[in-house]
Amino acid sequence: MGFTGELVLQKMTMNNIRVANALKPEKDVDGITDLNMGRLVRGDFSKGFVPPVANQANSARSGLSLHRFKNKKKKKKDLCVFYVSDIEISRAQTPKPVTQLAEEIGLLPGELEAYGRNKAKVRLSLLDRLHTQPDGNYVLVAGITPTPLGEGKSTVTIGLVQAFSAHLKLNSFACLRQPSQGPTFGVKGGAAGGGYAQVIPMEEFNLHLTGDIHAITAANNLVAAAVDARMLHEATQSDKALFNRLVPSVNGVRKFSPIQISRLQRLGINKTEPTSLSPQEVSRFVRLDLDPSKITWQRVVDTNDRFLRKITVGQASTEKGQIRETGFDIAVASEIMAILALADSLEDMKNRLARMVVGTSRRGQPVTAEDLGVSGALAVLMKDAIKPTLMQTLEGTPVFVHAGPFANIAHGNSSVLADKLALKLVGRDGFVVTEAGFGADIGMEKFFNIKCRASGLRPNVVVLVATVRALKMHGGGPNVSAGAPLPKEYIEENLSLVADGCRSNLRKQIQIAQLFGVPVVVALNVFKTDTLAEIDLVCQIAKECGASDAVPCHHWSQGGRGSVELAKAVKEAVSRPNNFQFLYNIEMPIVEKIRTIAQKVYGADDIELSPEAKAKVDYYNQQGFGSLPICMAKTHLSLSHMPDKKGAPTGFILPIRDVRASIGAGFIYPLVGTMSTMPGLPTRPCFYDIDLDPVTEEITGLF
Amino acid sequence: MGFTGELVLQKMTMNNIRVANALKPEKDVDGITDLNMGRLVRGDFSKGFVPPVANQANSARSGLSLHRFKNKKKKKKDLCVFYVSDIEISRAQTPKPVTQLAEEIGLLPGELEAYGRNKAKVRLSLLDRLHTQPDGNYVLVAGITPTPLGEGKSTVTIGLVQAFSAHLKLNSFACLRQPSQGPTFGVKGGAAGGGYAQVIPMEEFNLHLTGDIHAITAANNLVAAAVDARMLHEATQSDKALFNRLVPSVNGVRKFSPIQISRLQRLGINKTEPTSLSPQEVSRFVRLDLDPSKITWQRVVDTNDRFLRKITVGQASTEKGQIRETGFDIAVASEIMAILALADSLEDMKNRLARMVVGTSRRGQPVTAEDLGVSGALAVLMKDAIKPTLMQTLEGTPVFVHAGPFANIAHGNSSVLADKLALKLVGRDGFVVTEAGFGADIGMEKFFNIKCRASGLRPNVVVLVATVRALKMHGGGPNVSAGAPLPKEYIEENLSLVADGCRSNLRKQIQIAQLFGVPVVVALNVFKTDTLAEIDLVCQIAKECGASDAVPCHHWSQGGRGSVELAKAVKEAVSRPNNFQFLYNIEMPIVEKIRTIAQKVYGADDIELSPEAKAKVDYYNQQGFGSLPICMAKTHLSLSHMPDKKGAPTGFILPIRDVRASIGAGFIYPLVGTMSTMPGLPTRPCFYDIDLDPVTEEITGLF
Repeated sequence: MGFTGELVLQKMTMNNIRVANALKPEKDVDGITDLNMGRLVRGDFSKGFVPPVANQANSARSGLSLHRFKNKKKKKKDLCVFYVSDIEISRAQTPKPVTQLAEEIGLLPGELEAYGRNKAKVRLSLLDRLHTQPDGNYVLVAGITPTPLGEGKSTVTIGLVQAFSAHLKLNSFACLRQPSQGPTFGVKGGAAGGGYAQVIPMEEFNLHLTGDIHAITAANNLVAAAVDARMLHEATQSDKALFNRLVPSVNGVRKFSPIQISRLQRLGINKTEPTSLSPQEVSRFVRLDLDPSKITWQRVVDTNDRFLRKITVGQASTEKGQIRETGFDIAVASEIMAILALADSLEDMKNRLARMVVGTSRRGQPVTAEDLGVSGALAVLMKDAIKPTLMQTLEGTPVFVHAGPFANIAHGNSSVLADKLALKLVGRDGFVVTEAGFGADIGMEKFFNIKCRASGLRPNVVVLVATVRALKMHGGGPNVSAGAPLPKEYIEENLSLVADGCRSNLRKQIQIAQLFGVPVVVALNVFKTDTLAEIDLVCQIAKECGASDAVPCHHWSQGGRGSVELAKAVKEAVSRPNNFQFLYNIEMPIVEKIRTIAQKVYGADDIELSPEAKAKVDYYNQQGFGSLPICMAKTHLSLSHMPDKKGAPTGFILPIRDVRASIGAGFIYPLVGTMSTMPGLPTRPCFYDIDLDPVTEEITGLF
Repeated sequence: MGFTGELVLQKMTMNNIRVANALKPEKDVDGITDLNMGRLVRGDFSKGFVPPVANQANSARSGLSLHRFKNKKKKKKDLCVFYVSDIEISRAQTPKPVTQLAEEIGLLPGELEAYGRNKAKVRLSLLDRLHTQPDGNYVLVAGITPTPLGEGKSTVTIGLVQAFSAHLKLNSFACLRQPSQGPTFGVKGGAAGGGYAQVIPMEEFNLHLTGDIHAITAANNLVAAAVDARMLHEATQSDKALFNRLVPSVNGVRKFSPIQISRLQRLGINKTEPTSLSPQEVSRFVRLDLDPSKITWQRVVDTNDRFLRKITVGQASTEKGQIRETGFDIAVASEIMAILALADSLEDMKNRLARMVVGTSRRGQPVTAEDLGVSGALAVLMKDAIKPTLMQTLEGTPVFVHAGPFANIAHGNSSVLADKLALKLVGRDGFVVTEAGFGADIGMEKFFNIKCRASGLRPNVVVLVATVRALKMHGGGPNVSAGAPLPKEYIEENLSLVADGCRSNLRKQIQIAQLFGVPVVVALNVFKTDTLAEIDLVCQIAKECGASDAVPCHHWSQGGRGSVELAKAVKEAVSRPNNFQFLYNIEMPIVEKIRTIAQKVYGADDIELSPEAKAKVDYYNQQGFGSLPICMAKTHLSLSHMPDKKGAPTGFILPIRDVRASIGAGFIYPLVGTMSTMPGLPTRPCFYDIDLDPVTEEITGLF
């Protein structure tokens, strides 16, 4: 879950790839390191999920109990015996059949489409059936500004639902993002959580899942092929020839297709009889007249393929010299992924797909997917992807995996539909825990201002994930980077760094959540090197800074049991007053919306737009896109635009380099700095260690 | 099924795209035209599938009975009432749940992985369970040299199994190729059969199915990304730096991964201790030293994206000027698709993936996927794709859909594993009907010499599909082309053209099958315009030319009932003597193998190799690839290399322009003419008519 975009603003130069590669990076707080070792012991516990409607669940009796970590001495001695990787933990636990899980959570058989035994798509008709059911409690997991190693939002999310469902006997659901395959085979590895807080089977989570990203790739690239082919055909044919082909005479009769009638209406031509068009109308109808220098639509692959960042296409002689420069993004950066995450029905998705703008005509008009005639086909390609995928945690509690848009050029949150389905399924007293990418200044802000605006849902609590490591960094500790050993400040007790980090970044992130009127619970993701004094200090200052509560979490080593205190704190917090409000009125001018975010969320003095950015704002206003929400594309490594400025920077002007728009997804995205939307492969990618035993069919090397 | 490559040798120039587009092409003999109309009437029939082992099937009671076509007068009158499209026929019949189908054919629940309700993957463990079970009869459907419109091999295949299972109560299985999505949204439309001989639901067949092509795309493009990234890293790092990254020190210990030890062994370095390598050995180990001008690996997308035929990659500054020209193929042209179709176990697939050659080093050595360290990851990406997908015909009989390699640069046949599983499932008296792409001179020849060699299976009968239309063309009739109305010779009775076509192309194709010692049944796919005299003439001459039998087929309008005579003829033919033999000894020199095919199959006087082709043959011999079978890349529109030469041309020299190799798939492919491995989009692609009703979720416009 962590990925889907979090690499983007880390400048993946040759240099730091080399550093990152010199030592296998300590993948994440969730990954296996010398400091993090667990032992798997099978056992039994019961849990029950109380479905909100008929089909009462049977108590599930599959699961495992988790021993606490041995003491350090014992562990070192037993290193060979107890060292287990994430995939070994995942594999040691046999998931219950997804049909059983579905029954436990109250799905009817007809609402489930199994994909193998461990995952299933859930039909949207469920929303109709549970229409009158009250929603459960809605919990967002966000984080403080992270180190480049990540601070464990995904594992906190999974640990929390394990605690709710398997230990506190409260219905709960985790809603997670589907990870891109790129990083799985590239630098970062899998994204199913880690330790005893995982989604299983982790290899299915990390590989094709139920094909949604593949469907997005197919849809995205059909648009791209349609753009270039259309430009070629317009460049080489007369109006009449184009018309004859676009509206062919079949048995002597010419007829517009429905999608063509839509285009005519957008052009203000209220005719339905092809022969009645004037030559001028024919010309306007057949010529999208795309300006090759203003095509914004890129192709995508779900592979870290750096050589596709900038390419020239159309060099075969069959394309008649119509070459142009373009590029590929990683598939999860496709606008179609953002649409999947924001759509609240099949119809809404279809309409958003139709509105996607692929470029600008020579006369300065936006050209849409519907103008290309491709939007119906896109809806057909995406008809299954819109159904969330049901999986389970290590402790057999339900998880929806759905969508995973990039967290900068898009909004970095899992899908509206998964959240909505889950809120109905858990019922009034249940909990849905959903995760926002990056730090709270980005992921949470977009969750509130974009996702909640689209869904109409209102969150009850924010869980803000912090680590002693990241807090020390914000308190002035030395640089933390992937691949380099952690400096001693991060391994030894240092209360002063911790306190400074809490009083800068943690305080600011709590305040940001409070801007939206939502209570905050701080979840301290505990590492083995954290001392009791450090842990106590974080919890104490967090509460002083306005958190409803602050608790240490041990989900990595203990699973749900290690997050029971967090679950209790969240349960308590939902009873607190909640005065949710958006940060800005959607009708404010674009520049004012950007300024509001920069000042109130990031702590900037002001913003400064480049001439290009100003021109774009004018253009979007003129096109009627002025009342869309804002999706900032900013580094996640600082509250400011400067990755090196830790803590809570002030006194800076936020530069807006450019402004772009995803009209189908429905947001304007200002660029603060340079984006990379295509990660690369290092010298020794993860795939070197990934293998399949052809006899047992067991996978090794995914982590 | 027809597609997967059959467009390739039709030169898709701008001109004929325009022609093809001027009129909606008469998609295929299977498509809806004025001449082909059916009416759907629901009914009941029983059928039983006799599983070869325990889990005796229940008699299935779902299905539909099919009325014969109304007489011409009635039909014209009732045009609006009775006009139904393929997708309407498909949708009017509710498929039985795939779990029920699986039970009927004797699968155990643990052998099935459902993907939704209508399709499921079947586990390869079935082969172990049925190990001692005798195989059923193995029937290949091939065709005479087709017109550009196709002659209906797919519908004959489906009609034949419908006749066997649903009407003659004999177990049978159709093994079909998965179609590419490119043509579905491009020119050709879907490929699920047509009329009353279809695989249902046809939209699932034509869209993502169970994701196999997407998995191939992901695997293919991971190799491509690895190739370019590796060249970049080698170009910018010293031997020592590369070694430090490829064999990193983890906690002070360096270790080779298993895949690296394989590479060392191929290099003749029998060491396993990284520190023991000499500097020269380090250099040989870390440097694949790929020659950028000799990279043969292309990227793929499953989209008709003509602008990707020739591109330049690596133009972003992050790639340090390492630009090069390359291109994308349509996904089904990937060598990985050919491997999927030929592998006979997970282990075999993994080994083939490892052997794939991606290019040549500057020292002239082949560089493999295993050298790149990526072959284990490829096996992981392909672990589910290797399981065939179970679907059903309109009459509820079982179908495997699996693999769909291009029919020219690859072998154009469905998978070995699907055939093997089906042969066990139908049992000794059952029938497995599998289809080969293109005409018998290509698809059938490759089926015998490549696929049967890989599988060890021996076919019992060849069904050779002919149409009066194609026979008239071979007999000297005017040109037939997509998009243009058929000349009157094809609509009116013309016995002379029919006879000449039978005595040239049909006779030659029968003789080709006989070269392999396999009996031939000619299946005449009857069109409404065919007269009784024409039909009788074809059947008579076919038998004179050596066919065991020749029968007219009416599956399009009548479903299985229309193919009962064909099924009876096939059943009779399997009792005939069968002396199957390969056409050439695999140890013959490459040039001799090519010459044998050219002379004995195509009727050429001789072959002529270009200097480039000769050099390649020498290189492959030197590399030890000399004893691979041959996969000719030749037009399917003529027995010769000249698409205009119909009938049975003689007196020509077959030019071999170039010779290439798919080492993982395991064949050498000589190029006879220019290949296009990426179709394009016309001015009005199929997608204009494809739409989804967001309320009913019904798809329109797929055909």
